[in-house]
Order: sequence, then structure tokens, then C-alpha cells
Amino acid sequence: SVNPDLASERQTASFSVEKLTVWLDGGEEHTQKRRAVVEAIERDPVFSRENQYFQSQNERYEAAVRKAVHLQKKMHEMGWTESGPEFKYIYRAVSGDIAFLLHRIFIRSISVLGSDKQIAKWIPLATQHKLIGSYAQTELGHGTYLQGLETTAVFDITTQEFILNTPKISAMKWWPGDMGRSATHTVVFAQLYINGKCYGVHPFIVQIRSLRDHSLCPGITAGDIGPKMNFENVDNGYLMLQNVRVPRENMLNKFCEVQPDGTYVRQGSQKINYFTMTTVRISLISDEVIIPLMKACTIAIRYSVVRRQSKLKPGEQEAKILDYQTQQEKLLPQLATAYAFHFINDYLQELFNRVYREIRKKNFNTLPELHAFSSGFKAMVTQYSTSAVQICLQACGGHGYSSLSGLPSLYTRIIASCIYEGENTILLLQTARFLIKCFRAASAGQPVPPSVTYLAAVKPGKCPAKNKLEFLSPNIYTEAYQHMAARLVSSTAAKLQDLIQSGVKKHDAWNQCTVQLAQAAKAHCHYITVKNFAETVEKLKTEAGIQKIMKHLCDLFALHGIFSNAGVFLHDGYVSGAQMDMITASYLDLLAVIRKDAVPLVDAFDFTDKSLNSALGSYDGQVYQRLYEWAQKSPSNKQMSPAYERYLKPLLHNTQSKL
Amino acid sequence: SVNPDLASERQTASFSVEKLTVWLDGGEEHTQKRRAVVEAIERDPVFSRENQYFQSQNERYEAAVRKAVHLQKKMHEMGWTESGPEFKYIYRAVSGDIAFLLHRIFIRSISVLGSDKQIAKWIPLATQHKLIGSYAQTELGHGTYLQGLETTAVFDITTQEFILNTPKISAMKWWPGDMGRSATHTVVFAQLYINGKCYGVHPFIVQIRSLRDHSLCPGITAGDIGPKMNFENVDNGYLMLQNVRVPRENMLNKFCEVQPDGTYVRQGSQKINYFTMTTVRISLISDEVIIPLMKACTIAIRYSVVRRQSKLKPGEQEAKILDYQTQQEKLLPQLATAYAFHFINDYLQELFNRVYREIRKKNFNTLPELHAFSSGFKAMVTQYSTSAVQICLQACGGHGYSSLSGLPSLYTRIIASCIYEGENTILLLQTARFLIKCFRAASAGQPVPPSVTYLAAVKPGKCPAKNKLEFLSPNIYTEAYQHMAARLVSSTAAKLQDLIQSGVKKHDAWNQCTVQLAQAAKAHCHYITVKNFAETVEKLKTEAGIQKIMKHLCDLFALHGIFSNAGVFLHDGYVSGAQMDMITASYLDLLAVIRKDAVPLVDAFDFTDKSLNSALGSYDGQVYQRLYEWAQKSPSNKQMSPAYERYLKPLLHNTQSKL
Repeated sequence: SVNPDLASERQTASFSVEKLTVWLDGGEEHTQKRRAVVEAIERDPVFSRENQYFQSQNERYEAAVRKAVHLQKKMHEMGWTESGPEFKYIYRAVSGDIAFLLHRIFIRSISVLGSDKQIAKWIPLATQHKLIGSYAQTELGHGTYLQGLETTAVFDITTQEFILNTPKISAMKWWPGDMGRSATHTVVFAQLYINGKCYGVHPFIVQIRSLRDHSLCPGITAGDIGPKMNFENVDNGYLMLQNVRVPRENMLNKFCEVQPDGTYVRQGSQKINYFTMTTVRISLISDEVIIPLMKACTIAIRYSVVRRQSKLKPGEQEAKILDYQTQQEKLLPQLATAYAFHFINDYLQELFNRVYREIRKKNFNTLPELHAFSSGFKAMVTQYSTSAVQICLQACGGHGYSSLSGLPSLYTRIIASCIYEGENTILLLQTARFLIKCFRAASAGQPVPPSVTYLAAVKPGKCPAKNKLEFLSPNIYTEAYQHMAARLVSSTAAKLQDLIQSGVKKHDAWNQCTVQLAQAAKAHCHYITVKNFAETVEKLKTEAGIQKIMKHLCDLFALHGIFSNAGVFLHDGYVSGAQMDMITASYLDLLAVIRKDAVPLVDAFDFTDKSLNSALGSYDGQVYQRLYEWAQKSPSNKQMSPAYERYLKPLLHNTQSKL
Repeated sequence: SVNPDLASERQTASFSVEKLTVWLDGGEEHTQKRRAVVEAIERDPVFSRENQYFQSQNERYEAAVRKAVHLQKKMHEMGWTESGPEFKYIYRAVSGDIAFLLHRIFIRSISVLGSDKQIAKWIPLATQHKLIGSYAQTELGHGTYLQGLETTAVFDITTQEFILNTPKISAMKWWPGDMGRSATHTVVFAQLYINGKCYGVHPFIVQIRSLRDHSLCPGITAGDIGPKMNFENVDNGYLMLQNVRVPRENMLNKFCEVQPDGTYVRQGSQKINYFTMTTVRISLISDEVIIPLMKACTIAIRYSVVRRQSKLKPGEQEAKILDYQTQQEKLLPQLATAYAFHFINDYLQELFNRVYREIRKKNFNTLPELHAFSSGFKAMVTQYSTSAVQICLQACGGHGYSSLSGLPSLYTRIIASCIYEGENTILLLQTARFLIKCFRAASAGQPVPPSVTYLAAVKPGKCPAKNKLEFLSPNIYTEAYQHMAARLVSSTAAKLQDLIQSGVKKHDAWNQCTVQLAQAAKAHCHYITVKNFAETVEKLKTEAGIQKIMKHLCDLFALHGIFSNAGVFLHDGYVSGAQMDMITASYLDLLAVIRKDAVPLVDAFDFTDKSLNSALGSYDGQVYQRLYEWAQKSPSNKQMSPAYERYLKPLLHNTQSKL
């Protein structure tokens, strides 16, 4: 039975939850397919996550391998394909808690960077799990700055082989998933040397473990890097190479090739070698960031209408904590953010598809824009979502801190997304470099991509809104964001220019502006997110109730951003102090409006209880009962600790038995 | 040997690290005593934390009990006393990784709330570990709002006993430390009923486990609440009571008593029952928050001069990451915060001592100020420090995410401090209530404590600074903070007043102002912290080098706060946009200045390698070597996972053995 406090929230929904779900999925057929996949996975006991919170690292790894291997069979049975829409739903259903995720990146990198011949050889072996692949890029001493990688691959013309080496400890590959215990093969990124000349970083397929008995191949040192903040399911590994030889055919050579005589031939951009990272960056935004954020919102909001604490009105019963303004102000902006990011993800997917079509025709012109945007949005989305999940966790008080709430694992997982696939600050600075370039070009009247033409249009001005209601107009707030982003980009460009003109060297000047450059890049992404949300709501053709609540969420997302970053809007007087008070008033008013639909808005994400795996967030809201039942399963409650016999008994046995 | 990149940082220190350490400790004799305690603990293998990162929850608990029991012996041997200064140093040396912390709170609550007779009976038993105590306040459904506790204690006049009950599941005690597996006794907070009348929450000593065989006593259900985000060393537990009888003498009765005939007698304030929490709140600020923050700064800053990434100048070798402005901007404000909080802790200790002297004379007049301040500062310090440690972790890139860096455990531990001993938002609102009261009193010309007289002095005005150097004057920035805090308090008081005058009911009006009230309380605490830092530097009598660098840190702390909260300073024009640019310039300049002394400034915290327990943060900076060596110890590298035989071998054995 559903907790009555939660049930009553559903009776007053101002829109159809089912219709919103279908719209978020992109149509009825998608919803049906998603539910069918999720159901098939959840019915299968192999995929159970019931004991997950009580498992050790070793047990988690073993379960993850079991699931990955079983999934292979299951996909075959069900007719699901790797490249079909099902994989997204499978990933959602297993909550990423499987092995061989890097094996998938191994496959993707060969598909993107390999020749037709290489694809024909390796992809069938990999997709049938006749080998387990990994992707060995990061080194102990080298992360996002790939040009600095130290692993070497020297071409030996006499044997037609590459000789791979780890010249020092900082060059050891470190972090690659599936490599610590599982992988038999990996794509190694190494500096290519031919006749003593370095040609930069290239990818090589290297076998690291025997296919017969899994022992390490000659010249290979490898193992697990030890415990991490999360990802116990993944065997992140290390790898040292000592004179490891691979045939010439093992360098992935769709875009670059070493010919038998040692001639180096390049087709297209060197940057294409990093393209796998760009594709991974975009897919992780949805799978590893937005879905966990939606789950955290679901858990925290459902719990906040079940949990009662203190009295709002004297003499009444204790109030639902979601009725406190401070709790609304913690959670509802995160809910609006989850929707905003769902829509910006669609925007990025479209951009990606457009660019990828061009790349396959070997046209690399649009790659810089995709690179700049995927970098900036990856940084913004991961950073905001990490902080959002943290807020959800803390908003559940002590119980949020229990693993059984599901929130600690969501949080410790999502925070890693700020670091992997490119450290966020470095990514933001790459976006900033692109913006400064476009700003200068646009100011000089040269053509720039449509998304950044606004940069040239910055002018002093004042926000025209005269009362708090006018701040609910998308034109008003979108223009405020646009003005603010353009101002930050142009003023930082000016500071950069001034420094250089005053004699500071270019690279020093750049370094002295980086705090502000990163801020400008974030501001740009924030602006595009607000604009895209407003346009999505504008175009929305569905029932009036959904349109209305989406408009409220869009307003909340926008005004929350102004309220929390007031300084950059007030700075040049575009928004006045009096207007900031109006914005604050509208913002706080919206909280009370959206609060009424908070539960239906998270119900629409349509997570099953099994997928949430949370004692606080289940659909029926029986939180205390479930916390108590789940705690019973803890290994600590199964037997008396040896600590009693060893340490406590000797202390206590002299005390008189009844005090 | 020390990594040369780290060694070179120490050669250019602008002050004596040893002298700074001694000053932070409060004098030579304290430093000596601290080092002696730390050395004695670290030399003893029982206290080793070497394998901590590889242990399961059960192993951590067992080790924690072993350490706690051994510590008892050790203290006796060494002549260290519970109440002496040693315990602080012991706690620092064992990094809180011991059992029986709640046992200490059990002792403290009896000392504070018990009569002389109760103290004489229970304290010797407890200090000799002839029983293990816990402190059972929080319930499944009730946290910070103690009046809402549902556990009952009914006085039975015929047997002269209290009958304790858990009337429903939400009333189950949940979270108390040392209760899941260890405790034999606990202080239970329950609603006292005499002849059907409720007298509110009172503390009762209840035995829960047999002293003979540790089995649960009749009427008791208890166990471990399961896995959490950290604190595997602590057996947080649950407790249900069914008609559990304790003698009349087991109610702690220094301030309230039930006489044999059922007469209820109170001496002093009902609030005194929560006084244990206030004392715990203050001691946790130093032990559980500031020390971990200092450790995180030490690890991240040392690592940031060893780690090199990317090139700052073309043609040069890769740069130390601390030479990037963005990295400085992440870490150096956190370092300044650690110093600021060290000094505010002294301020709170003094306030506490003053109030406690009064309370022992049964004068409760100063309790509200102590309560308001300990609440607000607890909230501010824990929240800022949590975010600071998170920044340190993320600033170390991927390696920060490895448990071996030490940062994940510091982070997951410190984040809990935002929740335990009072949820931060609720605490801030208690501070706000006090501030609003004082503001009204002061405005009406009534006397208020000296720390809040500034509230009545708010007037419109403009910051007088004319260039970026003038913003390095403590008077300038302290006044800006004062103005801002007073404005936020007074404008929120005005909003509250307006709402009530417009007919909104008092409690609704309060709720509609809580977002701004919490902001005002934080602003007040921030102001006092800046003021206290500036005054500490002002009074500082030590070598010139230390005075100078402390002044820089104080400036950085203050300007960072303005830079990151620009909106509240710009709002009414007290600071103009042009002035904000000067502040930003001064702030960014300071980063480059303090960067030069960053390593000596963390060295001065004087943490041993064993106490940091970090592969990234050790004194010698051999980070990559240590990461590699420590990873070898992981259980995953000790044997092949059963997953190979079970799942991988069947897949791989059909592949041809060499590809």
C-alpha cells in the first residue's frame, strides 16, 4: 500500500504523468520499447541489485562480469542489437553496474579509427566476446594533456613490427577500465617513432593476456589499481610494457598509416585520434549524468513528502519537509535542472549527428565547434549535476547518508564524471579558446557558427522588466543571460588584449585570464541551456497542462541561475538591485507553484523501484519499514563480530551482571 | 629522497615553518606534547592504518574496537588522561578511526546532566570500560526536532520504575554510534509521562545487552543499520524498546527530577537537556572538520607541485599544475579557509568556556547566544569545509578519486558533519531567529550582546576604496562584510514585518522568509570569521615573515568571499562594478603571491605521513611510486578472481590462442 502522504501528492497532478513520460521518451513506441527492455532485465535474477550495498569490491566485480556475460546471451535471445536503441535502455536498467564498458569503447575506437580490414578482423571477435578489450590512454603522470603521453611505439622496419615500451613509472598506463583483471587486449595510445622521428600519439592494438590461461603476455606487467570512491564493478588497471612487439597491422590506420618502408601517411586531421573521446563524452552526459540526476531527484522528492519534521503551524501535526521553503529551494531547482539537461542533451545529439555525417565524408571543418561544445557542456552538465546530487543527498538528512538510500552511490559515481573523459577546467578553457576566437572573428565581421553570433552584439544596456511578473517572460531572461555571457567573453578578451599590449607574453597573459575565461565558458553554456529550454517549451505541442508546468520549470531554471549568480548580472547594471529583488520574489513564488506538482514531475521519469534501489525513493513511500527490513540483510547483523570474544568480553566479564 | 619539485618549494619559504607550527599549536610545550603523543601512537602497530583502504566494514569495526580497547591500556601506561589535552592529540593521531566515540558522549552526557550520585555510580564503570555506553537520541522519523521524539517513558509509581516503549516504527532509535554491536548501555531520550501528563523529552540510562554474554536484554531489539557513506569503524545501530523497565534513579536528574510520589521538579532550563549536543557541536568543529580540511589542503597542494601537466610556456617542460591560475584559484582559498577556521575555533572555545562557567553556577542567561553561535558556526564551518575538501579532491584529477589518495575518505567523512549534531539549514534558522530578535532589540535601543550590536548600525553607504590596493585594507573589507550582513538581516526583518502587516500569519511569513534568513545567518557568521581573522593577524606578535603571510591569507579569505558572493555586495551599490573589478584584480594577484609559500603553509600543519595516509600527500612527494606500491596490496591483486574460471574462460577458450 502506498503511504497516504505520498498518495495524496499524486491525486492533485495538474497534468497527465503518462503523457509527460511519453513525450520525454520521444514517443509512444520508445516508451513501450524501454519498458519492455527494463522489464525483461529486471525479471532476470542474474541482474538483481538487491545485495549490491553489502558486497565487497571483489564480489561487485564478479557480479559485474557475470552480468556482462549473461547480457551477451540475453541480447541474442531477445534480438537486441549493440547499435540499436535497446542498449541505452539496458544500461539504464542495469544502472551501469556491469563489466566490459571499456570493452565497448575498445570496439568503438576500432570502428572509428580502424580501416575496413581492421574492422573486419577485430569487431566480430570483440562483439562475440572472444576477446576482452580495454582502452589504454591515461598514464600515471598524464591525463587530459594527451600530447604529453610517454609510452613509446618504435617502428622496426626489419620485422615490420612496433616495439612498445613504458620508459618510466609516470608512463605506466593507469585507470583503464576492464584492464586490471579482465582484458586480453587493449588499444594502447603511444608516441609513434619512425627512424628516430616522433609522429605524435597513435593507437595500437596490443594483446596483454593469454587467451588460453589468462596469464600475462611476455613483457606485460598489469593489475588492479586498488579501491576507488565507486565503480567497484570496474577493474581499473595498470599496464607496463617492456619491448612488447605488435605487427604493423595493429596500428589503427583509417586516418594515419605506416607503410612497410616506414613512410608515414596521414589522411585528415591528427585530432581525429581523439574523436572516440568526443563520442564517449556525449554519450556519458545522458547515461552517467542525467539519469543519475533524475534518480536522485526522484528519491529526494518522494522522501520529502513522506518525511515530516517540526511544525509549520502551531498545533498542527508535523509538516512534510517539502512544505518548507528551504527544502523547496534545495530540491526544485535540481528538478528543473534535470529537465533542462534532458533537453540540452537532445541539442548536443543533433549537433553530433550533423558533424559525424560530415566526418564520414572526411570533412573536418565542423569538428572544432563540436569539440568546443561537447567539452563545455560536458563540464557544465557534470559539475552542476554533481552538486545537484549532493544537494539531494544532504536534503534527506541523515538517511541520505545511509547507503540504503541509494544516494551515496549515485553521488560517488557522478562526481567521477567531472574528472574522466577530460578534466572539467581544461575542457572549459578549450571552450573559452573557441569563444574568444569566434568573438574576435565576429567582431571583425567574419562568419562564425550561428550559435555564437551573439558574441559580437554586446552593448551596454538595461534589462527592461518593470515588475516581478515580467521576469517570467523567456525573452527577458534569455536576453539577460545572453548579455551576461557576451559581456564576460568580451571583457575577458579585452583583459587578454590589454595584458599583451602592456608587454606580457601571450602564454602568461592567457594564464592570468584563465579564472575569468573558465567563468565565461560556463556562462556561454548556461545561456545556451536556458535558450534551448525556452525554445523547447515554445515548440511544445502537447496537452496544456504539460506545457504550463514545463514553462514553470524553465522559468525556475532561469531565475534560479540569476539568483545564484547575481553578481555577474548586477555587475554592469544590466540588472539593478531593485530588479534583483523582483527576480528573487518571482523565483521564490515559483517554488510554491512547482512544489504542488513535484511528485508527478519525478514520477514522469518512470524509474522502477528496482532501478532506483533506494529505501527512501520507492514508489510506495514506505521508507521506514524498508530501511528497517533492508538493514537486517547487512552482514553485520548475521553473526556476532569476533571483536566481542577477542576484545569486549575480557573487559566486561568482571562487571556485575545487572547494574 | 624528496622529489626535487617538492624540495625546491621548501627552499624559498618566506617564514619559519617551525615557528608557524608552534604558534598554531599555542606554544612550544603544546607542540612538544602533541608530537610526543603522535609518535607514541604511530610507533604502536595496533594503531596502524596501513591496510585501512582495503578493509571491509566488518574488518574496520573489529580493528576500531581493538584500537579503542588498546588505547585504554596505552593511556594508563603513558599517564594520559581523558580530560587532559592529550585526547585531542590522540584523536588526531588515530584520525578518528576508533570505536567507542559515542561511549565518550555517553560519559559526557552523564557528567553534564547527571546528579553527583549518578556521576559517582556510572562514570567510573564507564571510564574503565566495564560497560560500553551509547547515546540514543535520533529516531528513524525524528532528527533535529527533538520535541518530536516519540519514544515514551511512563513513570510507574507502584514499582518506582520508568517503563520505556517504542510505540511505532518511526520511533525506533536509529543511527546511534556504538549501539549496533558494542554497547551494553545507552542514554535513551524519551517523552516523560507521569500520571498521563507529558513532561517533554528526558534522558534515561538503559541497559540493552547482557554483561555476561552480550545477548540482548528482555524487551530490546537492536542491531546495525547497515552500510553508510563512511564511518565503517562505527556500528551505528537501531533500538526498539518493549516495556523495558528502569529504576527511578536512571533518569539523569541534575536539572529535573521525578520524586518517589510522582512530583516533577525542575531546576533550570529545559533546554539544558540539549546541552550535550552543544558541547559536541563545538568539539567536532575542530576534530572532525578543521583537521580533515587541513589534511586535504596538505595532500592537494603537495601533489600540485609534483604533478606536471601541459605546457605553460612553449618549448619548456610541462608545468607544475599549481602554477596554473585556475589550480591556484581552486586550492589557495581553501588553504586560507583552513587558517580562518582554525582561528574562529579559538573564538568559539572562548565563548564556550565563558558560558560554561556561568551554567555551572546555574546561570542560563548566556545560553541563547552560545546556542545561536555554536549552531551558525557549526553550519557554516561544516558546509564550507565540505565544499573545500571536495574541491581539493577534484583538483587532484583522477588520482584524487583513488582511495589511496586519502581524499575520498576525508570527503565522505566530512560531508556527514553537515548532517549530524543538527542539520545545517535548521541550525542556520536558529541563528537567524536570534539575529532577528537582536536586530529588533538593538533597533529599539535595548541591550544586545556586543557581537551583534552592529546590526542596528546599518545605513546606506558606499565603499570608500579607490583602487585595488585599498582593498587589501582589513578595515575596508571588514566593513563591507559588516554592511552586507547587517543589510541582509535588516532587509529580511523588514520583509517579515511587511508580510505580517499585510495579513500573512506569523508562521507562514517566517516560512516565506527562510531562504533569505538562512542566507543572512551565513552572512553574519562569514562577517565574524573575517573580522576575527583580521583581529588575530593584528594582535599577532611573532616574526615578521609569519605576520606578513598571515595578512595575505586573511586578505585572500576576505576577497575570495566577496568575489564568490559578488551579488550581495553589489546589490545596494555599496560596492560598484568598477570596485568589483578592483577586488577581482587584487584577489587574483594574491593567488600568485601566496602560491610561493603554499607548500610551507601546509607543512606548518605538521601532519605525519602516517596520519595523512595518502599516496599523493606524503612529505617526500614520491607520488607515482607510492601509488604503484600501495596498489599491489589490493586484495584484487593477490589472487585470480573466481570470475575468470566461471565466466571468462568459457568465452575465451575457443578463440585461437594468438591473434
